[in-house]
Amino acid sequence: MGTEFQEKLAKLAKLAVRFGVNVQPGQILYFTAPTAGLELARLITEEAYKAGADHVLPVFIDDAITLAKYQHGTDDAIGYAPAFMAEALAEQAKTGKLARLGIYGDTPSLLAAQPPEKVSKAAAANATASRPLMVAITTSTNWNIVACATPAWAAEVFPDLAPDQALARLWDLVFKASRIDEDDPVAAWERDFAELTRRKTVLNAQRFSELHFQGGGTDLTIGLADDHIWAGGAEVMNDLRYAPNLPTEEVFSMPHRERVNGRAVFTKPAVIAGTRVEGLVVEFKDGKAVSITAEKGEAVVRDYFTSDEGASRLGEVALVSNSSPVAQTDTLFLNTLFDENAACHIAFGQAYSINIDPSADKDASGMNTSKIHMDCMIGHGELQVTGITADGARVPVMENGEFVI
Amino acid sequence: MGTEFQEKLAKLAKLAVRFGVNVQPGQILYFTAPTAGLELARLITEEAYKAGADHVLPVFIDDAITLAKYQHGTDDAIGYAPAFMAEALAEQAKTGKLARLGIYGDTPSLLAAQPPEKVSKAAAANATASRPLMVAITTSTNWNIVACATPAWAAEVFPDLAPDQALARLWDLVFKASRIDEDDPVAAWERDFAELTRRKTVLNAQRFSELHFQGGGTDLTIGLADDHIWAGGAEVMNDLRYAPNLPTEEVFSMPHRERVNGRAVFTKPAVIAGTRVEGLVVEFKDGKAVSITAEKGEAVVRDYFTSDEGASRLGEVALVSNSSPVAQTDTLFLNTLFDENAACHIAFGQAYSINIDPSADKDASGMNTSKIHMDCMIGHGELQVTGITADGARVPVMENGEFVI
Repeated sequence: MGTEFQEKLAKLAKLAVRFGVNVQPGQILYFTAPTAGLELARLITEEAYKAGADHVLPVFIDDAITLAKYQHGTDDAIGYAPAFMAEALAEQAKTGKLARLGIYGDTPSLLAAQPPEKVSKAAAANATASRPLMVAITTSTNWNIVACATPAWAAEVFPDLAPDQALARLWDLVFKASRIDEDDPVAAWERDFAELTRRKTVLNAQRFSELHFQGGGTDLTIGLADDHIWAGGAEVMNDLRYAPNLPTEEVFSMPHRERVNGRAVFTKPAVIAGTRVEGLVVEFKDGKAVSITAEKGEAVVRDYFTSDEGASRLGEVALVSNSSPVAQTDTLFLNTLFDENAACHIAFGQAYSINIDPSADKDASGMNTSKIHMDCMIGHGELQVTGITADGARVPVMENGEFVI
Repeated sequence: MGTEFQEKLAKLAKLAVRFGVNVQPGQILYFTAPTAGLELARLITEEAYKAGADHVLPVFIDDAITLAKYQHGTDDAIGYAPAFMAEALAEQAKTGKLARLGIYGDTPSLLAAQPPEKVSKAAAANATASRPLMVAITTSTNWNIVACATPAWAAEVFPDLAPDQALARLWDLVFKASRIDEDDPVAAWERDFAELTRRKTVLNAQRFSELHFQGGGTDLTIGLADDHIWAGGAEVMNDLRYAPNLPTEEVFSMPHRERVNGRAVFTKPAVIAGTRVEGLVVEFKDGKAVSITAEKGEAVVRDYFTSDEGASRLGEVALVSNSSPVAQTDTLFLNTLFDENAACHIAFGQAYSINIDPSADKDASGMNTSKIHMDCMIGHGELQVTGITADGARVPVMENGEFVI
C-alpha cells in the first residue's frame, strides 16, 4: 500500500490521539493494539508524544498468543486472568494520568473452534480481571476506540476476496467510516456530532419513561432508568472533551435494569468471546433475559449472559439511523465498533455512568452493573421506535429505521 | 527461512522455557520481546502453556516506538518512566508467581543519533523505574535471558552482508552459541555447566581476597567482597533450578565496592543506553571510577556511570575463557548476552545477591548497590589473572586468557 495509504493512516492516528482520546500534556497514553496493527501503533505513538504525553505504554495483542492458551493451557490457565496489571492501570486512570486508546481490530471468529465451556470460562475470568480498569477508565479519564484493519479480520468480512484486496477494501471502509476521506476529519465529526447533540437534546427534554421497539419479530419495551441521560458523540471528563468511539453514529441511554419486557430479535450476528453468534432471540421479563436462543453459538452466549446477575440485564439502549454512514456501506463488519453504528442496539451488562444524572442514586434509579458489556443489534429498515411518557402518551421517535424527532 | 529454521526456533523456545526459566505449573511467564521477534515469542508462549503456566504476559518492545519518545517527546517525557507497572510485576515476582524471560535482541546503536543528555536522562529514569522489578526478580524468582536475532541487530553485526544474509548468519551464531545445533541442547548445557561448576568450586575453596588483572594496558586489582560466592551456570531459587543466561560461559563473583584500584582498558565496544561506547579506559581508586575516558560515547558513559553513587563502583567480576564457544565465533555481537561470554569482564553498578553468603551482612561485606548494571569487557588473549590470598600468596588463575586452575 502506497503513499496515499500512509497519509490516511497518519490522519487516522492524529484523529484518534488529538480528537478521540484528546491526549493531554503529562498524560500516559496506554493503548492496546493487534500485532498486525504495528504500523498504526507507531504513528499513534508519535502523535501522542507530539501532543505532550509523558509516556506511551503499548500492549500488543496477538492472535496466536491468545489462541495458545486455549490450545495448550491447563484448565487452571483457562480460568486465570491476571488482575494485577488491570488494577495497576486502574489506579493511574483514577488520577487522570492515564489516557486510554483501544486500537481495535479483533479477529471475529478467533475462538470459534474452541470448546464453548473453555471460551466462557476464560471470558468470565478476563471480564472479572479487567472490570476495575473498565470502570476506572469510563468514570475517571479520557478514552477512545478506533479501528485498525488487519488481514485476519478482513478475511472474515470479505471471504471471497484475495487477502490483499480484502485488507485494502476493509481499510477503505475504516477510513470512510472514520471520516479520514474528508479533508478535515475533525470538522466532519463536529458537523455530525452537532446532529447527535440535537437528537440527544430532544430525547433528554422528552424524559420518556419507556421506549417501545416494534417490527420484524421484535416487540420490546425498555423502561428507562430514572434520571437517565441521553449521550452520544463527544463527552467531557475532567474538563476534557473527547470522543469515546470513532466512528460513532449513536445516541444512547440507560435502561432500568428491572423494567425491560418482551422479545428482541437480533438482526446482525454478534461476536461474543471470539465466537460468532447468529439468530439470537432473547425474551425479557422484568428486566431479565428469561429465554436465550440462537441458531449458532447458543452455548457461548447463554453462558456469557449468565456470568453474573447483571449480565442477563440491559446496560444500554442506543438509537442509530438505518441510513447512517456505516449502515450505508452495507457491510457486516463483525466488529462492534462498526456494526453497532449501523443499527439500533441494546447492550447486556454494565451501564455507563455518563447515562445517569451524577446526583442520582444510581442503584435506586435502576442502573445495571456487570463485568460484561455486550452490544447486540436490533435495528432494521422496518423498525418502529416509540417513546412513552410517564402519563402514557406515545411519541414516534423512529419510523422504518429513521429518526422522526 | 525454511523448516530447519522453524525446528531450531522451536528448540530454542523449549530450551528457554523448560531449562532456562524452568517455568512451573501455575506460574505467570512475563516476557519482553522485540516486535521483530514475534515468531519466537509465539513459540515461547506455546511452550510455556505446555509447561503448565497459568498465564503468559507478553510485552513487546519496538524500536520505532522507543525512538519516538526521543524524537517527539517533551523534556518531561524524556525524564519520565512509569514505575507502577514494574512495581505491580515486582509484587508478583516476590511471591514466586511471576517467572521472567527476556527475549533479547536489542538494536545496539538505536539511540546513537540522539543527544547524549537525553539518552542519559532517559536511561536514569528507566533504571529508577525498573529497579524494584530487577531486584525482585533476581532475589525471588526464576528467570532467563535468551537471544533473538533481528534484522536491525544483524545489520550492525554484519554491515557488509545483505539484510537476509546478515539475519541468517546471526541466527546461525545464536543457535550455535545456545547449543541448539546439538541434538540435545540440555545435555550439552549440563556438560558445560559441569565445567563451570568445577571452576566455581575451586575458586570458592580458594577464598581469594583479591584478583589481579594484568596485560594489554590493564593493571587492575579487584578486592572481593567478604563472604563472596562464585556463581555460574545454573542457579537455584525456591528449590527451582534455572539458568539465568543462555548462552553463558562465565563464572562470576562480587567485588568489594571500596577495594578496586588501578586501570582497566576495555577490549570490546560496549552498548550503553543505546549508544556504542568505544576505547573506554577507567581508573579506579578505593573502588570508585575516578577517571572515565572513551574514544566514542564518552559523554553517555560518563553520565551513566555517575547516575548514582554505586554506578561508578563495581558489582560483578567475571572470568571467561578466551576460547569460549562464543569467543570462537570471533564476532563482535554488540549484545551483552554474547560479548560478556567471550571475555573476562567487570560490571558497574548493582551486585547480585547470589554472589554473597545469605547469612552475611551484605553492606558490611562490601556489596555494591545501584540502579544500573553494565558489563564491560576486559578480556583478551594476553590477560593474566592472579588470585591473591589473605596472607599475600599469589595463585595463577588465568594465563594468556585461559584458565589454569
